[in-house]
Amino acid sequence: MRVLLVVAYDGTEYCGWQVQDGQRTVEGVLNRAITELTGEETNVIGASRTDSGVHAMGNLAVFDTDSRIPAEKFAPAINRGLPEDVRIRYSTEVPADFHPRHCESVKTYEYRVYNSKTENPLVRRYTYFVRHGISLERMRSAAEFLIGEHDFKSFCSVDTQAKSTVRTVYSIDIEKTEDIITFRIRGNGFLYNMIRIIVGTLLLVGQGLREPEEVKTMLNACDRTKAGPTAPPQGLMLKSIEIDGIC
Amino acid sequence: MRVLLVVAYDGTEYCGWQVQDGQRTVEGVLNRAITELTGEETNVIGASRTDSGVHAMGNLAVFDTDSRIPAEKFAPAINRGLPEDVRIRYSTEVPADFHPRHCESVKTYEYRVYNSKTENPLVRRYTYFVRHGISLERMRSAAEFLIGEHDFKSFCSVDTQAKSTVRTVYSIDIEKTEDIITFRIRGNGFLYNMIRIIVGTLLLVGQGLREPEEVKTMLNACDRTKAGPTAPPQGLMLKSIEIDGIC
Repeated sequence: MRVLLVVAYDGTEYCGWQVQDGQRTVEGVLNRAITELTGEETNVIGASRTDSGVHAMGNLAVFDTDSRIPAEKFAPAINRGLPEDVRIRYSTEVPADFHPRHCESVKTYEYRVYNSKTENPLVRRYTYFVRHGISLERMRSAAEFLIGEHDFKSFCSVDTQAKSTVRTVYSIDIEKTEDIITFRIRGNGFLYNMIRIIVGTLLLVGQGLREPEEVKTMLNACDRTKAGPTAPPQGLMLKSIEIDGIC
Repeated sequence: MRVLLVVAYDGTEYCGWQVQDGQRTVEGVLNRAITELTGEETNVIGASRTDSGVHAMGNLAVFDTDSRIPAEKFAPAINRGLPEDVRIRYSTEVPADFHPRHCESVKTYEYRVYNSKTENPLVRRYTYFVRHGISLERMRSAAEFLIGEHDFKSFCSVDTQAKSTVRTVYSIDIEKTEDIITFRIRGNGFLYNMIRIIVGTLLLVGQGLREPEEVKTMLNACDRTKAGPTAPPQGLMLKSIEIDGIC
């Protein structure tokens, strides 16, 4: 049977999702924990190959097994073999041909900025610290230009291997609670570093270094050098992935 | 001059505040960073000697120096020599006879419980994970018995060296936001492990294992064995210390 896992992790101590020789990765610790449990060689397939230092509450992964463990029991059973910074939140059986990257989905990411005069060691692992004043109004105006279907080539790492750089962004919500600004971005898929470049660019606008309207020009340029910097990884978290009929 | 520091730290990697041979402590890293900066031997005096694993946003410490660095510049200057899990949020000059433990103060602590069916690796360093249902109503009723001046001997580690176990608790507020229950406790001072025993006891009541009224009996017994267990350290944070005329 094919089992789907909802996976949460603190990415601080990981070189990202994808298995790499000699590196600690989320995929690597999952494969090892499942193999220990079932005795079968395991290669999980992840929905989103998050970067080094990026966190998740709702990444998805599937694996195949002949084990007689009921699908919903895999979550607690795998957790017993995982380090405390990775947890399976839920497990369920899915059709044998279900592939978490070859399907329509809605992904929600959150990016958090700690915006204060002084650093806060209690949020440093999960936020990007910005000392200067930031206008939410200006960032919200700029974000409007990114909503909808666009070629996001300017907002994508030049290292991308994507065939098409067209994606649809459904919404970008920006809220501030106490000293934390949260960007919540929903879309049908995101290019390599796309969220971090969007946030890096919106922060330039929020600080008054660019005008909101310039984001439209950046987008139209289809040139990575025209957009803002890539915001650092620790502020980013993959919140959830919704797939029709699956989760 | 005597300089006051407002100190924030992630206590996860520290054996508490107080200097101990061969252990990493907050006081130890502060003394070292200040000595590196001023060239003077330094022994900071802390307001609250928090335990191993306990966090702070607003602990206070003072030290004496003949340095000509202006008092308010110490915060950024010391920060350059500190590990990233300790930060000075503010520094100012105080009278030479000001002692942060020998003065009237109001201390506010927060204790956080992550109350969900599944663990969350993103909050594990700063919360205590409780899986069962917890009634806020029941805990609020029980907390009423602890407000005011009482002998808190039942709510204090037997290892205490305090001469008197009488303290005044001004308020205990209990709120839930998403899956996090926050206990906010204000008082004129707290005994060794007092907050963690109060929280451990309220959680028994919240889970229906004790009745709210039993907290009154526990308090009157003046016997540590009558109260509930000591909740684990990582949920606890020293939020602020208010001192008239100082901060």
